[in-house]
Amino acid sequence: MPKSWSRVVISSVAPAIDGGQWPIKRAVGEQVEVTAGVLVDSHDALAVELVVRHASEETEHVTRMPHVENDEYAGAFEVSAPGRYLYRVRAWINRFATWQDQFRRRVEGGEPPSEIESELTAGASLLDEAAEHAPEDDREMLTAHIEAFENGNAEAALGDEIAELARRHAPHHQQTSSATYEVFVDPERARTGAWYEFFPRSVRDDDEHATLDEAAERLPRIQEMGFDIVYLPPIHPIGETNRKGPDDAPEAGPDDPGSPWAIGGFLADGSKGGHKSVHPKLGGIEAFDRFVETAHDLGLEVALDVAFQCSPDHPYVEEHPEWFYHRPDGSLRYAENPPKKYKDVHPINFETEAWPALWAELKSVFEYWIDHGVTTFRVDNPHTKPFAFWQWCLRELREDTPELVVLSEAFTRPKTMYHLAKLGFNNSYTYFTWRNTPDALEAYGEELFHTEAAEYFRPNFWPNTPDILHDELVDGGRPAHKSRFVLAATMSSTYGVYGPPFEHVDTQQRDHKEEYARNEKYEIRTWDWNDPTSLQPFMARVNRLRNENPALQQTRSIRFLDTQHPDLIAYSKAAGDNLIVVVVSLDPHSECEGQLVLPIHDLGLPADEAFSAHDLLHDAHYTWQGTHHYLRLSPDRPAHIFRLEPAGTSEQTHAAYDRLVHA
Amino acid sequence: MPKSWSRVVISSVAPAIDGGQWPIKRAVGEQVEVTAGVLVDSHDALAVELVVRHASEETEHVTRMPHVENDEYAGAFEVSAPGRYLYRVRAWINRFATWQDQFRRRVEGGEPPSEIESELTAGASLLDEAAEHAPEDDREMLTAHIEAFENGNAEAALGDEIAELARRHAPHHQQTSSATYEVFVDPERARTGAWYEFFPRSVRDDDEHATLDEAAERLPRIQEMGFDIVYLPPIHPIGETNRKGPDDAPEAGPDDPGSPWAIGGFLADGSKGGHKSVHPKLGGIEAFDRFVETAHDLGLEVALDVAFQCSPDHPYVEEHPEWFYHRPDGSLRYAENPPKKYKDVHPINFETEAWPALWAELKSVFEYWIDHGVTTFRVDNPHTKPFAFWQWCLRELREDTPELVVLSEAFTRPKTMYHLAKLGFNNSYTYFTWRNTPDALEAYGEELFHTEAAEYFRPNFWPNTPDILHDELVDGGRPAHKSRFVLAATMSSTYGVYGPPFEHVDTQQRDHKEEYARNEKYEIRTWDWNDPTSLQPFMARVNRLRNENPALQQTRSIRFLDTQHPDLIAYSKAAGDNLIVVVVSLDPHSECEGQLVLPIHDLGLPADEAFSAHDLLHDAHYTWQGTHHYLRLSPDRPAHIFRLEPAGTSEQTHAAYDRLVHA
Repeated sequence: MPKSWSRVVISSVAPAIDGGQWPIKRAVGEQVEVTAGVLVDSHDALAVELVVRHASEETEHVTRMPHVENDEYAGAFEVSAPGRYLYRVRAWINRFATWQDQFRRRVEGGEPPSEIESELTAGASLLDEAAEHAPEDDREMLTAHIEAFENGNAEAALGDEIAELARRHAPHHQQTSSATYEVFVDPERARTGAWYEFFPRSVRDDDEHATLDEAAERLPRIQEMGFDIVYLPPIHPIGETNRKGPDDAPEAGPDDPGSPWAIGGFLADGSKGGHKSVHPKLGGIEAFDRFVETAHDLGLEVALDVAFQCSPDHPYVEEHPEWFYHRPDGSLRYAENPPKKYKDVHPINFETEAWPALWAELKSVFEYWIDHGVTTFRVDNPHTKPFAFWQWCLRELREDTPELVVLSEAFTRPKTMYHLAKLGFNNSYTYFTWRNTPDALEAYGEELFHTEAAEYFRPNFWPNTPDILHDELVDGGRPAHKSRFVLAATMSSTYGVYGPPFEHVDTQQRDHKEEYARNEKYEIRTWDWNDPTSLQPFMARVNRLRNENPALQQTRSIRFLDTQHPDLIAYSKAAGDNLIVVVVSLDPHSECEGQLVLPIHDLGLPADEAFSAHDLLHDAHYTWQGTHHYLRLSPDRPAHIFRLEPAGTSEQTHAAYDRLVHA
Repeated sequence: MPKSWSRVVISSVAPAIDGGQWPIKRAVGEQVEVTAGVLVDSHDALAVELVVRHASEETEHVTRMPHVENDEYAGAFEVSAPGRYLYRVRAWINRFATWQDQFRRRVEGGEPPSEIESELTAGASLLDEAAEHAPEDDREMLTAHIEAFENGNAEAALGDEIAELARRHAPHHQQTSSATYEVFVDPERARTGAWYEFFPRSVRDDDEHATLDEAAERLPRIQEMGFDIVYLPPIHPIGETNRKGPDDAPEAGPDDPGSPWAIGGFLADGSKGGHKSVHPKLGGIEAFDRFVETAHDLGLEVALDVAFQCSPDHPYVEEHPEWFYHRPDGSLRYAENPPKKYKDVHPINFETEAWPALWAELKSVFEYWIDHGVTTFRVDNPHTKPFAFWQWCLRELREDTPELVVLSEAFTRPKTMYHLAKLGFNNSYTYFTWRNTPDALEAYGEELFHTEAAEYFRPNFWPNTPDILHDELVDGGRPAHKSRFVLAATMSSTYGVYGPPFEHVDTQQRDHKEEYARNEKYEIRTWDWNDPTSLQPFMARVNRLRNENPALQQTRSIRFLDTQHPDLIAYSKAAGDNLIVVVVSLDPHSECEGQLVLPIHDLGLPADEAFSAHDLLHDAHYTWQGTHHYLRLSPDRPAHIFRLEPAGTSEQTHAAYDRLVHA
């Protein structure tokens, strides 16, 4: 027999990822809506409550979970501070409410006075119990009711007030509690961020290696374009042994800078530096600190790349040979995917017996950069390092730095991508790049935003990266770049772009592979940073609309709409009064005519009146009525971003909802 | 840091009810198909295995789970004995397979001999480890390969045989294991049973109280009708205090027999008897034993009703007043739902401090009847007793009696019905009675048979009970009785009927409520047990078809089909070669014409050839071709039960698949 048991059973709690094994995620200011199935035998009245606390606090906050239907109860709480919140559901039998319900039916059923009096005595004894635990004021009110009950005053037993008093102070009869679940609360930029990637060494007008101070001169421009996060590929010394040449050539010339991902090489004084040092030509750690300061002054976050692998010249190689793989002859193994060899890097052997020291050292890499003002990281190939390491490392780091944003660069199979998100990555690369039809994008959007994945997986959409130049961008040129940019920036609320070649519509692939020719990974390039014919103004405008419209700063409300054209995709997003409809053409070569079909009732638009449709991208105003609206998109104008609102709303009122708290 | 960790992660296992909190259910002879999501960082080859044992045995049976797609692995096992099986998934890195895959690519990529030789050395050391754990024969083969490797024989390293040997004997590198999950294996009649309910006191031709010996005379007829289980309302002594009269009258006359659910009254010798005794007028326990023996000789199971409540004359009331509820004046509370009172029974107070003694006593009630040959029970209102009690009681009982079938009579809200099934009831009453349109039946069927509920909830469909005479049966008379009977008997594989009034199409309701007039609960009735105009022959035929067709003995394969008529429902069921299509009209007043639309490809029927459709219910043969088939059902013929098969199949071959092992 059980040692103890309760008549009350909590049969389900949601959200709960894998039965509560993993936390759900929210950003500061968001709501957590919790539902629970709660059962009791017979017909007793239940009190169901949501018990919440921040992990750093002892105090629990209790709110009621009203009954919704069919034994399902619902409550909610707002998360206002970053870090871990713990929530659980508890339920108990509300004996007074049970008694009151029956008593009311006795009175209405006309039971004889003797029975009524006897029941009032039973009710009074329930109030006695409540009075014992009530503070002075409430105890007086309870005592007054007890006296009324004892005087046979049935009327006194039927009120809501006495029921409320009893609920508040009665012992929690047969109380049971669910397991405790966790929500990890991230900073808002984990949910809403526009990332700009560039190589800081490639910012000069000549082919020379730039410093971080020179790179910092580009930051105002990036800020003006509306980006939130500047993401730098690795900034560490680059190995000289087996350094790669241009376009991944197996051997480098004497002036070739090498791949920044071949981490670990020589500092200015000839000593070796690794993951905790800055390339001497970038100006060392002092230049980095100045770079971060400039960025922060502009309101930009700096994101660093964390690639746990070592060039042959990395100090770990000498100091910790036990952290690497060895061949039978004792030599160190290069990274390889036979028959391909990547001789400029050694992978780390996480199966080493010295793993505790290894784990501690790798975690300290993050800590080093956190000390230098970085709380945003992009992790290179996390799926080639053990899940257990990330789970431990990210959780440990967040104990001191809950505002971490860590982007998983795992372009791999879905279960692995989702698992990395569950264990702590709070931004993730996606298959967005390879979803190039409205149907494919819509199916992927439904998966990401409307399944359980939305509770823990935050997609970060990238139209390109230094490793990926998709055929669609090549084939579609400028119109395709615009379409993909609008899609990335408005379907998801977190997105990024590898900026310089994207702005300049660089469509040169290497060997017809999905990859840029003259890849900046292997050589220094120059870009016209102020070319007015580039996509810079377009990108700036889209980012401004993101920043002005709360609807574009979240993904939960996305709803895909019918366009009656196979190459047109449309979706709505709403936050408070802010209602946005985005329409994008995926045909970069031809004009497409379709119909935007608005579910006006669901969108809260008037059925019988006109409403205003303001194309924010082209600043064109329309007055619409009804459900069907003619669309014509062309390679010149491959997207609309409409703000819809009641026709009477004047432009002056826009500012009001722009200031709305983000939903 | 964790104390230990593995690079391998089992991210999901299915089936697992509420994360494995509850067992899934199967019947003897069925398969359990298990899938698991298994991940490892990098690109190592995994070995994934299903580890199964019967709870009563130490020996674990290990089978391989091949990769299906996207990191999903699948395996299966058959359950051949009743009781609990435990299953878990384990996974480890197959180092030799990992090595072999890379080595193959090295050879194909043309790596130089020095590299190949060095890699062969690495491969040989993996075989060394396997050889250490291999028995003599296999060790010799491994040693031969090791020598070949050391001699630089690359060919020897590429075969499947050496991979198989290494897999079999290599240490399980980085092995991890899932949680252990449970499957409870029931006897086949938990899945496939036709229940026949009748009041044994009402089997005489006059109005006198019959004995169980007289009731046993009806058993051959019930067996001939094809039923499997005879279910008797409570057979215990009936209380005299506050006994109910006919049609639930608050007072009984001197000759009124009382409700069998008012359990506990006087034995022939004047002493009191309760849940472990038999009503003296039924003939006492000896008559019951004879009744069970007769039933078993006929191949019938006897199901008893377990209703944990006590008439005022029950021995518990005197012996254990602490098990009951008391009013403030110390008197015992009757069962009530104010303002209604049920003065002939006292509910049990499971909140009593003496609950351990109460639980033990109630469990012993089951044990008493198990000792008298009963392993099938129908539990009255289980949802008014604590979930924790049932969970403990049913699990304890099954330790000694795994073949228990326990039917939950919980006509209540869905979460409670499902929860009772999770914790141990292996048959459940349903909402079938109130699902009276094709759409409603199909939606309910999808929920019961094609969601997770199918893993633990076994629906037992009843068209009527002593408490329920639905308006549809009243309005629809004989055609409705036939339709509802075919639906109950063929949609679900477990069903029951309250026989006598159903056979005789008794449509007399009391006060226009959903209840029989002259309810047998309160009075003795007489029935013509051999009326040739009754539904008896029809019911016998349907039961014979159930017994002859494996497809009707399970529910997993059910598929609803289009009939192109709103009052016609059709569904297919398949088991092995046995393919059944049932069509039922839900309009008892008019002829309905429709089209049966067969998804012939999915059903395994020929697209371009004729096939045979044998209406087993009316023994009519049709030759069909293609997808659409004309249907006409009428009040006279409100149902078809077709067996479909290739046209060439002779009648003689039918017997072959009738003998098929049930799927």
